[in-house]
Amino acid sequence: MQYTFSDRVQSLKPSAIREIFKYSSDPSVISLSAGNPAPEAFPVKEIAEISERILREDPISALQYGLTEGYTPLRCFLKDYMKKKHSVGTDNDDILITSGAQQIMDLVSKSILNEGDTVICENPSFIGSLNTFRSYNTRLVGVPIEPDGMDVNALEQTLKNEPKAKIIYTIPNFQNPSGITMSLEKRKAVYELARKYNVLIIEDNPYGDLRFRGEFLPCIKSFDTDGIVMYSGSFSKVISPGMRVGYVIGPAEVIQKMVVCKQGQDVHINMWSQIVCHEFVTKYDFDKHLENLQEVYRKKATFAMNLLDKHLVPNITYHKIDGGLFIWCELPHEVDMPKFCTDAVKNKVCVVPGTAFMAQETDETHSFRINFSTPTDEQLEKGITILGEMAKNL
Amino acid sequence: MQYTFSDRVQSLKPSAIREIFKYSSDPSVISLSAGNPAPEAFPVKEIAEISERILREDPISALQYGLTEGYTPLRCFLKDYMKKKHSVGTDNDDILITSGAQQIMDLVSKSILNEGDTVICENPSFIGSLNTFRSYNTRLVGVPIEPDGMDVNALEQTLKNEPKAKIIYTIPNFQNPSGITMSLEKRKAVYELARKYNVLIIEDNPYGDLRFRGEFLPCIKSFDTDGIVMYSGSFSKVISPGMRVGYVIGPAEVIQKMVVCKQGQDVHINMWSQIVCHEFVTKYDFDKHLENLQEVYRKKATFAMNLLDKHLVPNITYHKIDGGLFIWCELPHEVDMPKFCTDAVKNKVCVVPGTAFMAQETDETHSFRINFSTPTDEQLEKGITILGEMAKNL
Repeated sequence: MQYTFSDRVQSLKPSAIREIFKYSSDPSVISLSAGNPAPEAFPVKEIAEISERILREDPISALQYGLTEGYTPLRCFLKDYMKKKHSVGTDNDDILITSGAQQIMDLVSKSILNEGDTVICENPSFIGSLNTFRSYNTRLVGVPIEPDGMDVNALEQTLKNEPKAKIIYTIPNFQNPSGITMSLEKRKAVYELARKYNVLIIEDNPYGDLRFRGEFLPCIKSFDTDGIVMYSGSFSKVISPGMRVGYVIGPAEVIQKMVVCKQGQDVHINMWSQIVCHEFVTKYDFDKHLENLQEVYRKKATFAMNLLDKHLVPNITYHKIDGGLFIWCELPHEVDMPKFCTDAVKNKVCVVPGTAFMAQETDETHSFRINFSTPTDEQLEKGITILGEMAKNL
Repeated sequence: MQYTFSDRVQSLKPSAIREIFKYSSDPSVISLSAGNPAPEAFPVKEIAEISERILREDPISALQYGLTEGYTPLRCFLKDYMKKKHSVGTDNDDILITSGAQQIMDLVSKSILNEGDTVICENPSFIGSLNTFRSYNTRLVGVPIEPDGMDVNALEQTLKNEPKAKIIYTIPNFQNPSGITMSLEKRKAVYELARKYNVLIIEDNPYGDLRFRGEFLPCIKSFDTDGIVMYSGSFSKVISPGMRVGYVIGPAEVIQKMVVCKQGQDVHINMWSQIVCHEFVTKYDFDKHLENLQEVYRKKATFAMNLLDKHLVPNITYHKIDGGLFIWCELPHEVDMPKFCTDAVKNKVCVVPGTAFMAQETDETHSFRINFSTPTDEQLEKGITILGEMAKNL
């Protein structure tokens, strides 16, 4: 049979990163290309305890069908917690439990975007979200990112040029891949521009709790008196990504449409993991757990940055980070970046070429992304040393 | 803010059944409207054992990110098992683990259907799947179902009339809601028609293992030498629906596109539940478990049908079933069926009006659906007795 595919998926390609993973399955290759949280940060003992208790005391709740909106006690907890801790959520907002943050991008897209509509994102930005927007046949327009976040002048120009813009997608904390955090002034400016041009903001915040240095900044959602921000949260980086539990807090009217889409997409999120997350955040010391995580990542990030300072700088520069999982390294502009990344694989180190994160494949970048949370210290040391030797020969 | 939604979701409504659930949250109302498997059929003890072992011996596998395609040992087991037991799957096929069968409908739709394409389904059919097809702005055309399955003459006429038909959606075993099983002759005829008109078949088989009487019939997929059948399987009815584990076996070329869509939709299915399912089917006696399930459902279905014979027949007739979870009851044609269902709620019994399952809301039906797996025997007895009293006054 000759298969014909829908227009929207004709040109879709598997995530470039997932393709790169194929190299990293070679055990002799050091992978600095993943985005996995550090396994030593998983609360294994607590999850095992909770799981044993659930399956003994109330197994049917964990095994029977649940509500599409999510496990009610978890939704109530998150509403309250996000309101108290981050001033996120108003009486006009509702909450939906999703498969990590990834499903939020899909459900917002499906609910809001027609083919040909525009999504504005930081350039570079997270490939997983960009691919979701692409999968609805939309137009992706990137706005350059500066050391304090999105270039707001360029954002306004883009909003003027793109009458079909419906969504601004931003990762304000320790952005993937750049590691950049948006300043408070810019958070306010982006909010005002979205309001002025009647565009929704998706504020994707998977790394916000992984700040190991500096002051926490308010979420864009905390200014949201107009119902224009969809706040995207996730337990993937703070409890476990394999559980696939995320949550979106946004205008009830939009959430309702997303719930209908979700009914037809997966019915609801695995009940066991929702109950485990709820028990973990309510019956254990979640804040203490976050502090421990921050300590794990402070150590790993500091170790990685020291290695970069020693081996790569000044030939290769990078943006110092205060949290998150990624470091964005920039090659001299005369160097062929894709070739550098291919050569790195030949030298048994895997990094992600910056092109993977650009709104358009033709958008220029001289950078590549490295991850420090997945590799061991030994792997980091060996991998960055090899990159350093390559840097010397540039 | 004034929200504008995408064309595809403008007219989408929450599942009529989920709306009916609101009545059934009233504890004084007997719900015969659900579709939940019987909780006494869940292998609770085994799942608790497996879970404890996984979280002790290899917790990171259960908690870290996994592959979009699914947990490799589970995929390998299912490929082998479905090939050996049901002759399902060829060398040109691949397998993808999904969130129950529901996500299969979404991923096939997203990969194959453009807006305005036609999906042909049995009329009535499963509302969850129909709503997913609708959510891609497609045209749903129903083909009448006869006591031995889809009317194949009407199917051919529909294929002639619908040049943009891309998919035939069928539930060949104990169809939801009709309870009807398609004969072997018709399975072959539907396959030949799909081949002749170059249309994919989605063979949705969530209830196949719940046959408690009569001979198992071959899957349509077992004839599939041409790569035109997507076989949709699920653990929801045989292990646990709250785990959200299903699987699709189909042409590798189509599965590849579905994998790309799934990357952007939810990344992958919860790892814990995939590993639990794999351990359950490989380390315990899965066939024995299925026999036990069949015994549970034989008892419940027989009990329900005896009550229907006693209280409803001949005023209300129904199709005798050999498996599955549902019974389709037909009112005399002069009776106002929606009013009957509303009156039933007033009398504290909840059933699903047949209109919920029709391809078009205007398609005629005089039937309603009852479920016998979720209520207790006492609830069944009380609920059907009330319906019987209503039937006497028709």
